[in-house]
Amino acid sequence: MPLIVDHETRRREVAAVAAALIVRSGLEKVSVREIARAAGYSTAVVSHYFHNKRELLLCVYQLMLGRAEDRVMAALEAGRPVRACLEELLPLDEGRRDEWKVWFAFWGIAMSDPHFMDEQKKRGRNAQKLIAHILDQASDIPADADGGRDFHSQRLLVTVAGLATQATYDPAGWPPSRQRAVLAAELQSLIPPRRVSLGPTRSRPAQETL
Amino acid sequence: MPLIVDHETRRREVAAVAAALIVRSGLEKVSVREIARAAGYSTAVVSHYFHNKRELLLCVYQLMLGRAEDRVMAALEAGRPVRACLEELLPLDEGRRDEWKVWFAFWGIAMSDPHFMDEQKKRGRNAQKLIAHILDQASDIPADADGGRDFHSQRLLVTVAGLATQATYDPAGWPPSRQRAVLAAELQSLIPPRRVSLGPTRSRPAQETL
Repeated sequence: MPLIVDHETRRREVAAVAAALIVRSGLEKVSVREIARAAGYSTAVVSHYFHNKRELLLCVYQLMLGRAEDRVMAALEAGRPVRACLEELLPLDEGRRDEWKVWFAFWGIAMSDPHFMDEQKKRGRNAQKLIAHILDQASDIPADADGGRDFHSQRLLVTVAGLATQATYDPAGWPPSRQRAVLAAELQSLIPPRRVSLGPTRSRPAQETL
Repeated sequence: MPLIVDHETRRREVAAVAAALIVRSGLEKVSVREIARAAGYSTAVVSHYFHNKRELLLCVYQLMLGRAEDRVMAALEAGRPVRACLEELLPLDEGRRDEWKVWFAFWGIAMSDPHFMDEQKKRGRNAQKLIAHILDQASDIPADADGGRDFHSQRLLVTVAGLATQATYDPAGWPPSRQRAVLAAELQSLIPPRRVSLGPTRSRPAQETL
């Protein structure tokens, strides 16, 4: 192992270990010492990368956000359908449930910490932008349709976050099939109604283009 | 003041004070001593009503749930429209934002405490039942419409919880008008499409009956 490791790489490595501990025992109960031990470093080494626990926690928070965003961008680049891109944000498996658990853990802090409160706000607004970007691929949902792109992305953000609040804590009650059904219904409801035609109606393959 | 106070009344009183402190400084930072002082009692008196902080916290959680449920039931009994009943659950003002903040504060605990995790699950399932009960008043959304009452109440639960995740922390970005618009759009999307009629179409007053 090289003696000199990229500063940011080491920070991310420690943050990833911290995230795993937070999921298991909660934010408050995890100490820097414990994180250092689990990561295989001394507390002194970890203190070199993070001034304090708060700074480490912020890094954990951003690491988790980055992961979700990377998945969405990869899905977009691979030309996956809109629904599949949005599903990257849902707690459909243990890894993604853990991400949401880490975020939820921060919500308690945000109340008494203006900086985390700000992160929380920023996070919501960025997520909405990411969703708007995904929606740009949805040919069935024109940007100028009822309510507009802003409103559509707000509705979908609400759906994604709302699904996460339920499915993260109750995976048995909210299996992937149910989460997907709610998301699909939501997307479907964003498609503007067709003009009434008097000719024979062909069924529109809306599901597939989404 | 009578010397003998109803046990449950005193518990609720202390829990209400605890809730106010939790909103201000978070779950972990609030001590039983601090709660007792703010409520005007000695720690010994509070300890008579709650064996420990955990029991007190559980009482706070249930108190907040009860408040929201009472508001919904009152709205239902007053014959308010479906939308108004659901709005009782949204963080439209400071009091309701505080309720959500208290709930969010518990989400961190739920990860490492199976009992709170269970409460969290129960809460979601009960909220869904409450919403299904509200929907029984929506004549425009028949119980056997596409997806059925279960699916409708799941979608609305997701909408309400999702709105809360955004509006509680970002009230400026999610003013009441925006929250109401998202909820209204969601309700609207649950109304099954009318059969195409060849006669002149009358505009349907769907908004009003909801």
